[in-house]
Amino acid sequence: MLNKLYNHIEKALPPKRYQHTLGVIKVAVSLAKQYGINEHRAEIAALLHDVSKCMSLEELHSYIDCDETLKYYGTMGELLHGFAGSVYAKQELGIYDEDILSAIKYHTIGRRGMTTLEKIIYIADAIEPNRDYPNVDFIREKAKTCINDAILFEVDRKLKYLLKIDATIHPNTVDMRNCILGELKNKGSKIYE
Amino acid sequence: MLNKLYNHIEKALPPKRYQHTLGVIKVAVSLAKQYGINEHRAEIAALLHDVSKCMSLEELHSYIDCDETLKYYGTMGELLHGFAGSVYAKQELGIYDEDILSAIKYHTIGRRGMTTLEKIIYIADAIEPNRDYPNVDFIREKAKTCINDAILFEVDRKLKYLLKIDATIHPNTVDMRNCILGELKNKGSKIYE
Repeated sequence: MLNKLYNHIEKALPPKRYQHTLGVIKVAVSLAKQYGINEHRAEIAALLHDVSKCMSLEELHSYIDCDETLKYYGTMGELLHGFAGSVYAKQELGIYDEDILSAIKYHTIGRRGMTTLEKIIYIADAIEPNRDYPNVDFIREKAKTCINDAILFEVDRKLKYLLKIDATIHPNTVDMRNCILGELKNKGSKIYE
Repeated sequence: MLNKLYNHIEKALPPKRYQHTLGVIKVAVSLAKQYGINEHRAEIAALLHDVSKCMSLEELHSYIDCDETLKYYGTMGELLHGFAGSVYAKQELGIYDEDILSAIKYHTIGRRGMTTLEKIIYIADAIEPNRDYPNVDFIREKAKTCINDAILFEVDRKLKYLLKIDATIHPNTVDMRNCILGELKNKGSKIYE
């Protein structure tokens, strides 16, 4: 079963994207061990997280039902691949584990109330060995001790970048950050004037 | 009617907050003239925008029904005063104009698809003459020629500040920004990797 999935992903992705996926698997399995969750499920979620990354916009849409989360954002391929990937994994690859499917679905935009597996796939995607950007090593170290700290640092970096380039920000990403802030230290009470 | 409302607000707010309100009225009426909307409605919305600013948390909650927008944020007084103010204006002051009520409701967090009146109250609150922060004059100038540009600049500043102080960000604010970006130039297609 696992070999078959590996073969499927290797065929579905260009070599560089497949190397990225192998990197995400490595980090995800290591973090699963670290945080005491099932390593096999982390491996499958990581292996499949980008299964729809190279689909055309038309193909992506064929795997997406009407989803409130996608309202106003339905034309953004980068955002859609997680949603389509989750449906594809269930329909075409026979994955029925809801936690794995949700980790695939939200690995790009996040969501409020992520499980440990979802957090692991989200952050592994950002810090796997092939990633190279300022402070990535700092986030890698954070991830080993506090996954929430790592996600907070990564998402703040992402949001600042999106603000800088005048790009759309999905509300889920902000809500993931709000939720993690709350989990970390009940921060975030006083905000708007 | 208008005199009665002025008296009500002067009594409901401390002098400094009342001066702020007079500043918002001044800017809002000027922008209403500029953008061709009814100045009288702009004056009322500006006059009432902070009507609930000095209520206790208990009183604020007494004026708020269950509102999806407030999910997870219901304990934040700074955020609630717009929502409570809108209900208060209707129930206690007899304001039934939905555009005015919505301008009061969303003047702090914004929302996707704001009307011109809502945008005017939102930005007037941020740039009235008593406000003093870096680049406020730049935003004042922007507001005279393109209210969307002014809001975008102001909200980016606000979001960067909230990120910096690890504070909660309401998804509405991000969605207002996304919507205005779209209105401005169909930006925001490629975002997440």
